[in-house]
Amino acid sequence: MADFSFADDRELQKLNAQVLEEPEEFEHWEKLVRAAESQEGGLNRNSSPQAIAATRDTYDRFLARFPLFFGYWKKYADLEFAIAGTEAAEMVYERGIASIGISVDLWANYCGFKLETTHDIDVIRDLFERGAESVGLDFLAHPFWDKYLEFEERLDAHDRVFKILDRIIHIPMHQYARYFERYRTMAQNRPLSELAPEDVILSFRREIEHDTGMKPKAEADIERELRTRLDNLHFEAFQQTQTETTKRWTYEQEVKRPYYHVTDLDGPQLANWRKYLDFEESEGDYTRTKFLYERCLVTAANYDEFWFRYARWMLLQGKQEEVRNIYQRASCIFVPIVRPAIRLYYAQYEESIGQPAIAVDIHEAILMILPNHLETILSLANLRRRQSGVESAIMVLKRHMESPDTTTSTQGALVSEWARLVCDISGRPDQARKIYEEGQQSYHGSRPFWFGWFSMEVKQGEYERVKAVYRAARACLSPDTVRELTALYLVYLQERGGAETMKEWMVIDAEVMKSAEDGAADSEDVVMGQNGPV
Amino acid sequence: MADFSFADDRELQKLNAQVLEEPEEFEHWEKLVRAAESQEGGLNRNSSPQAIAATRDTYDRFLARFPLFFGYWKKYADLEFAIAGTEAAEMVYERGIASIGISVDLWANYCGFKLETTHDIDVIRDLFERGAESVGLDFLAHPFWDKYLEFEERLDAHDRVFKILDRIIHIPMHQYARYFERYRTMAQNRPLSELAPEDVILSFRREIEHDTGMKPKAEADIERELRTRLDNLHFEAFQQTQTETTKRWTYEQEVKRPYYHVTDLDGPQLANWRKYLDFEESEGDYTRTKFLYERCLVTAANYDEFWFRYARWMLLQGKQEEVRNIYQRASCIFVPIVRPAIRLYYAQYEESIGQPAIAVDIHEAILMILPNHLETILSLANLRRRQSGVESAIMVLKRHMESPDTTTSTQGALVSEWARLVCDISGRPDQARKIYEEGQQSYHGSRPFWFGWFSMEVKQGEYERVKAVYRAARACLSPDTVRELTALYLVYLQERGGAETMKEWMVIDAEVMKSAEDGAADSEDVVMGQNGPV
Repeated sequence: MADFSFADDRELQKLNAQVLEEPEEFEHWEKLVRAAESQEGGLNRNSSPQAIAATRDTYDRFLARFPLFFGYWKKYADLEFAIAGTEAAEMVYERGIASIGISVDLWANYCGFKLETTHDIDVIRDLFERGAESVGLDFLAHPFWDKYLEFEERLDAHDRVFKILDRIIHIPMHQYARYFERYRTMAQNRPLSELAPEDVILSFRREIEHDTGMKPKAEADIERELRTRLDNLHFEAFQQTQTETTKRWTYEQEVKRPYYHVTDLDGPQLANWRKYLDFEESEGDYTRTKFLYERCLVTAANYDEFWFRYARWMLLQGKQEEVRNIYQRASCIFVPIVRPAIRLYYAQYEESIGQPAIAVDIHEAILMILPNHLETILSLANLRRRQSGVESAIMVLKRHMESPDTTTSTQGALVSEWARLVCDISGRPDQARKIYEEGQQSYHGSRPFWFGWFSMEVKQGEYERVKAVYRAARACLSPDTVRELTALYLVYLQERGGAETMKEWMVIDAEVMKSAEDGAADSEDVVMGQNGPV
Repeated sequence: MADFSFADDRELQKLNAQVLEEPEEFEHWEKLVRAAESQEGGLNRNSSPQAIAATRDTYDRFLARFPLFFGYWKKYADLEFAIAGTEAAEMVYERGIASIGISVDLWANYCGFKLETTHDIDVIRDLFERGAESVGLDFLAHPFWDKYLEFEERLDAHDRVFKILDRIIHIPMHQYARYFERYRTMAQNRPLSELAPEDVILSFRREIEHDTGMKPKAEADIERELRTRLDNLHFEAFQQTQTETTKRWTYEQEVKRPYYHVTDLDGPQLANWRKYLDFEESEGDYTRTKFLYERCLVTAANYDEFWFRYARWMLLQGKQEEVRNIYQRASCIFVPIVRPAIRLYYAQYEESIGQPAIAVDIHEAILMILPNHLETILSLANLRRRQSGVESAIMVLKRHMESPDTTTSTQGALVSEWARLVCDISGRPDQARKIYEEGQQSYHGSRPFWFGWFSMEVKQGEYERVKAVYRAARACLSPDTVRELTALYLVYLQERGGAETMKEWMVIDAEVMKSAEDGAADSEDVVMGQNGPV
């Protein structure tokens, strides 16, 4: 799709080829973007339409793959401003905050851009308000808040400045003290009515009149007293915020990388995020917890762990649309499809809210790219079984057993699942046995095939059959696998065998087991077998 | 039993008390033995009978516990020689080699002692022959062989010396070259008849006559030619021995501690013994392999691993008495009873050769000391079941369930096994369920109790019952255990649930699972559940 636009530039073609080959490689993209921008000695509004198109296309593809690099959204916006002007740049900013709406920097930049490009106060103010909604809670939101305050100050809108400060001083933030100082000073010269809600002021006034017995005429004295009490009230709020800030400080100072990057996070970082999320969850404030998850999932976007956790937490908040949204973002953007676990969860979620068709589509989408992914096939089969019964589950299994994309070992597992359905769900062990017998030649090397057959015969409980399967499997499987199976067979003999069994037991044990690891393993297995969830 | 004999010695009483308190502590014994010997300024034939009795008793108890310290057998023999003379000393040596018959040093000492204490050539010779049988194959047997050769040399029994050398040069040994040199030199002056078996010489003679066409009259020439050819023959034998020695050299030079000690062996040492045993087994010589196992089990006597392995190997050699002997030595002398695994194997072995009564006794012996050892109780119950049916197995379980020695958690496991027998063997799930329902109060904290009940209901396959057990268990078990159980329940829902199941699935998953570890664990369990030997 994109290569045409570099038609006459070897270098760009090369870089673009690299990118197409390894789209996960950030470095390739970085090079390509830099090269694209510097075409024709740096793009500007007079550059050739082709160079401009090629660069836009590059940015679009890059940011579709890496939407969390706020810096590139900004660069892209600047570029658009240079070549196509305000509206184009604005569109990019909007796309940017749609992708990474909790970036303080991006919001600060966007608002700064607005200030320079429009004179419509209300428009700017609306944008600041949107920003406050999106990033106001950030522990390091001060660059944004400062911009907002500065804007209102320039307009001498002191009442608004005071209102904003009144909001900020209740947020646990790195710079909480600074804002309170400012708020307190300002409060001295603000009209009483702005210092607290009307009812609060009224009740204070009553208290004073009652305490001091002053008559209404001594209005000035009353106001002085009132301001003192309101100042104490503000100070309590400040102390409250201080406590909340301190609680979070320990976690915040451990956050070494607040932004997204392709490189891994180290163990302590991940541990800190876990602890921080535990803490915020236990505090029980939905908005704050959600915001923390969003922050965490910028820096840890590549870790399924936090997506799973976020979705699970959200589910318990009873927010259906939010849950779906989390699964979709995780599945479609951040977690590479080669790790399908979260997609399978997403599918199960759609099924759980009555959308089995979507669940099926999600499975099929994974299988288009990973046609051999056992867990997905099995999950799809069970989905079909739950929704339309055994037969349609078996159809899924057969389809993939016969598909050329399926490896023999996967096929073996599918046959074993097919037999399990026939035996456990349809209650036809004889048919299941037939399936195994017929598969014996084709899947002789498959672990799940033999373990499935073995455990089925154990359930049926006919010694001769169990023994026969064990013997047959021993001839086919690798030594390690044979030892695993033997451990199970030995347990079976102990638990089900008759008076003569131990003769066979000792010989098999001696033949197959050797070092003490096994010795140990054995005895564990004995216990497992007898008490474990087998 | 022993303390009386130290009646009038505080110090000895103290040391003896220590020993009685911690009989596994080698240091205590060491001190006690030293102190006992040095009573009355060092024991001799004039020492008080009491002191002598006390010391003997000390040695006997010490060497009964640590029979592999050959050095102490020697010290004991010397002591007996000093206080009671030859016969007494000899008895000790005999007891010593009965305990550690593969000790080159002990045999060398014993033979040396014989040389000094008797003049009966045949008696001495017999002893050397016994020694040769016992330790002749040792890679470091040269001190013994040298003594033997020296003895025959003193008697000018050159024919015997030559015969002995003829034996030695076929044994892979550290000093193989030295012995061959000596053999070769000596061969020059030995009569032809001693240089090889008669038939060999005869066939060589024929060859020569045929090759050279010499006539019998040229006897001298023939002999010269014969000797040359025989020397080549010997040299081939030497090269053969050299190859065999080289093969073993790598393992031998890794043996840092050839003798027994109470301290542990490090990983590389254990690994080397494993490899060495693998090698000698693959060479397929029964005598050499057995001898190597015996050597290994002097230095590694405290490691079940090698006892297990030895017994397993021996079993496959079809030597019933040897196998029993190995298990008995391991069980009764070396492996402390707190590690009963090998005793349980011994029991199973006795059962396997038609001695279930002995098997029962072994179990009971373990339970006398470890009344709470779950694996042993379960093993005994299954032994009873195999030999006399379910009812007597259940009696075993009940006996221990009701015993005050049994902890609640063990009781929970026993109840679960009881129910398993009733359900799987007697085929009475209803009764089994009753057992669980009645135990619910008493064993609410027991993992195996709940897992057993849960898996039984899964087998029975009634959703409402499975769900009820899962819910009840969740209220009782620790968070980690609940997560384990939940993983199984989630698999059950996926594999057995109907169209509406996933609603419940998602909620339970969100409630119980949290970090990705579980996320991962889940998905594994999915596969396990569907293909694993469950």
